[in-house]
Amino acid sequence: MTKQLHLNLFVHGRGHHETAWRHPGSTPLALTDIRYYRELAEKAEAAAFDSIFFADALAVSDEIGHVAKGGLEPITILAAIAGATSRVGLIATASTTYTEPYNLARQFASLDHISNGRVGWNIVTSWVQGAGPNFGYDAQIEHAERYERATEFVEIAEKLWDSWADDAVLDDRANGRFADTGRIRKIGHRGRWKSVAGPLNISRSPQGRPVFVQAGSSATGRSFAARFAEAVFTAHLEKQTAADFYRDIKTQAAALGRDAERILVLPGISPTIGSTEEEARRLSRELDELSDPAVGLDRLSNRFGGHDFTGLDLDRVLSPDDFPDPRTVQAAQSRAASIVELVRRERPTLRALLHGLAGARGHFAVAGTPERIADIMEDWFRSGSADGFNVMPPILPLLFDTFVDEVLPILRRRGLFRTAYEGATLRDHFGLERPESQFFPPAATAQLRAAE
Amino acid sequence: MTKQLHLNLFVHGRGHHETAWRHPGSTPLALTDIRYYRELAEKAEAAAFDSIFFADALAVSDEIGHVAKGGLEPITILAAIAGATSRVGLIATASTTYTEPYNLARQFASLDHISNGRVGWNIVTSWVQGAGPNFGYDAQIEHAERYERATEFVEIAEKLWDSWADDAVLDDRANGRFADTGRIRKIGHRGRWKSVAGPLNISRSPQGRPVFVQAGSSATGRSFAARFAEAVFTAHLEKQTAADFYRDIKTQAAALGRDAERILVLPGISPTIGSTEEEARRLSRELDELSDPAVGLDRLSNRFGGHDFTGLDLDRVLSPDDFPDPRTVQAAQSRAASIVELVRRERPTLRALLHGLAGARGHFAVAGTPERIADIMEDWFRSGSADGFNVMPPILPLLFDTFVDEVLPILRRRGLFRTAYEGATLRDHFGLERPESQFFPPAATAQLRAAE
Repeated sequence: MTKQLHLNLFVHGRGHHETAWRHPGSTPLALTDIRYYRELAEKAEAAAFDSIFFADALAVSDEIGHVAKGGLEPITILAAIAGATSRVGLIATASTTYTEPYNLARQFASLDHISNGRVGWNIVTSWVQGAGPNFGYDAQIEHAERYERATEFVEIAEKLWDSWADDAVLDDRANGRFADTGRIRKIGHRGRWKSVAGPLNISRSPQGRPVFVQAGSSATGRSFAARFAEAVFTAHLEKQTAADFYRDIKTQAAALGRDAERILVLPGISPTIGSTEEEARRLSRELDELSDPAVGLDRLSNRFGGHDFTGLDLDRVLSPDDFPDPRTVQAAQSRAASIVELVRRERPTLRALLHGLAGARGHFAVAGTPERIADIMEDWFRSGSADGFNVMPPILPLLFDTFVDEVLPILRRRGLFRTAYEGATLRDHFGLERPESQFFPPAATAQLRAAE
Repeated sequence: MTKQLHLNLFVHGRGHHETAWRHPGSTPLALTDIRYYRELAEKAEAAAFDSIFFADALAVSDEIGHVAKGGLEPITILAAIAGATSRVGLIATASTTYTEPYNLARQFASLDHISNGRVGWNIVTSWVQGAGPNFGYDAQIEHAERYERATEFVEIAEKLWDSWADDAVLDDRANGRFADTGRIRKIGHRGRWKSVAGPLNISRSPQGRPVFVQAGSSATGRSFAARFAEAVFTAHLEKQTAADFYRDIKTQAAALGRDAERILVLPGISPTIGSTEEEARRLSRELDELSDPAVGLDRLSNRFGGHDFTGLDLDRVLSPDDFPDPRTVQAAQSRAASIVELVRRERPTLRALLHGLAGARGHFAVAGTPERIADIMEDWFRSGSADGFNVMPPILPLLFDTFVDEVLPILRRRGLFRTAYEGATLRDHFGLERPESQFFPPAATAQLRAAE
């Protein structure tokens, strides 16, 4: 089979445009109503998407006065929608900084059992400023330390998921042997940040462990992704930076001895789709005009570590000198850099920049016909900028429905996307191997069995 | 309406008898198969039970070689079964010792939204010895400190659940006001064990917060329950200790200014049901004979803080002198005491004691006809030993089906149990008030609105 696109539906509020929640095309349901998420999951599955994904932040957003926030918690969402679906992958964000590895490893193993092998974990270190103080810290833990902790955390979680051999549960009713305790072992981890004895208290799950997803884009974030990630979500405002990122991730992964085919790079794309270019642009303008410049300024400020932009005239053309050096930004460094790069290249007014960022928070936002969206996706895919896309509809469900009804058929006619699932697990959809247990590799198992 | 029984289905392995997993009447499904739990929840709902409950332990059991263990994680189970049910209450165990209050408060709020107000939290401090080392501690944190932490933890969680007024979300699309930020507030908790800034990042849930369930039975555990619990699960081997416990809990709750009607005492009952006494005893013997004395000895040892009983002859009559003083036991003190009391009264052999404990781990186990089971339940209820029961079928689903088919009709004929749900939330079933937010009481809200 020729290589095809991988598509993930990224669910965010009532759509990725910050004003989507006000638009009549967005869901009438509350963000705490599970039916909203279940219906999206059912639609993603009907469209044979690889997966559906829920982002997260461990603090209430300062924007909540004017932007729809405060939805359900991702792990409970996945468990709740697993029963309404049977094929689509289910990806939840969870933090390595503010959770216990034993609890997280266990909930993801439980989700992987509940969903019959469809779960992915978007590994984040929680960059939002408000998170630290909700977990006993005076302020946010700084970037480098968060990644050191993340590395140890993932190593612990992997050991926990590997602490049961696949064949540890015997369930031998006749002889009264439930498990082979020689096939379940302690992990005895004593590290810099955490000590965890193990074993985990749940058996190894259908996929061995969740698929690892990551979205780090700083130098540290990229090397973390190159080591651990099986899918990478990434934000680019243009194809060139996406291509650079793509090459960098694949090169770094290969340098670590990994198969570069087993780490999928999925840039975000936020398509406002109209039957004509004019209609698409009109819909886009409608959304922009609902936006509040004060919210945009706060958000821009957060992107640049709290820098104050309120002194700038909204209608003056910007220059890179209006921004602090992105290398000094602690949070999402590469997004800050790409904003400065865009300003250098396009010289927008502050108002126009804020409209652009209101669209998809630094991801690639485009308004156009279904043909044009499909062309862009094909171009990025064939030119080595993407293995697929993190599809971020500006309005949910409206613009996801439009994507499925009008863009997908074009991609399918071009042979770029599946018409039906071939496999059952998220690993199947992503073309990934099932990982072996580091403690109970199959070869050793086979030898053991042969010797019996 | 006259007062009626409250009934909770307690799910444990493939039934509460330790050998149930081997019995043909227990489920053929794996303990990691969500269908098993979903079917039990559907049956509990069809029977109009108040709730279904999942216990938990944060370490794999040493017994796993011979006893079915290692099932799904309770919070993910509740989320997964919520969509398959619409009335039955859903209660999960979660630990105050080894989780973060922000994460726990949020997941329970999310569950309460997902289930439309049907969630309860069984508050535990995690007594199993293996838990501490899975969370960075060299050993288990001792009993008194666990309860001090639990008290602060619940106070924090209550503040987080109260940090949004019920009317904080405006969702005013026309005017672009999503939330009234004056109706969402920080909690600013700085305590001995935890500091949590808040607010929570999810809106106040249908029940305000989950129903609080507790099962502590030491002196500390009882005073904790009297302060916080709205339902108490408790283990008694005879009616008299249940009656003492009942009176003690109600008296302590009233002394704290609480309405004693708003704290339900639900002793465990593990009924082996047969159409004749002889048939019930035969089924009970079948289960006992599948049990392994070594497993029973290990379990007894765990109940007495690791005391070694292996030197005792299985067929010698026991005396209280064979046991250490229960007051020296760190874990579940009152269960240890009730075992010694039973030995003093009945002078069983060690083998007979182990068979008894294999049945329901210190809860009241009885074999008899449906009439006899109903008589016992009515007697405990009318004599002030119970507001209802934690129903612990020895074999699942077999003996739950029998309970529903044969015992419930008798209880209903006697007017002791509902034939259909009258309310929609777990608070409705339990007859509990919805708690007001401590920060945004309705009276203040009404004044504020009137002044506008």
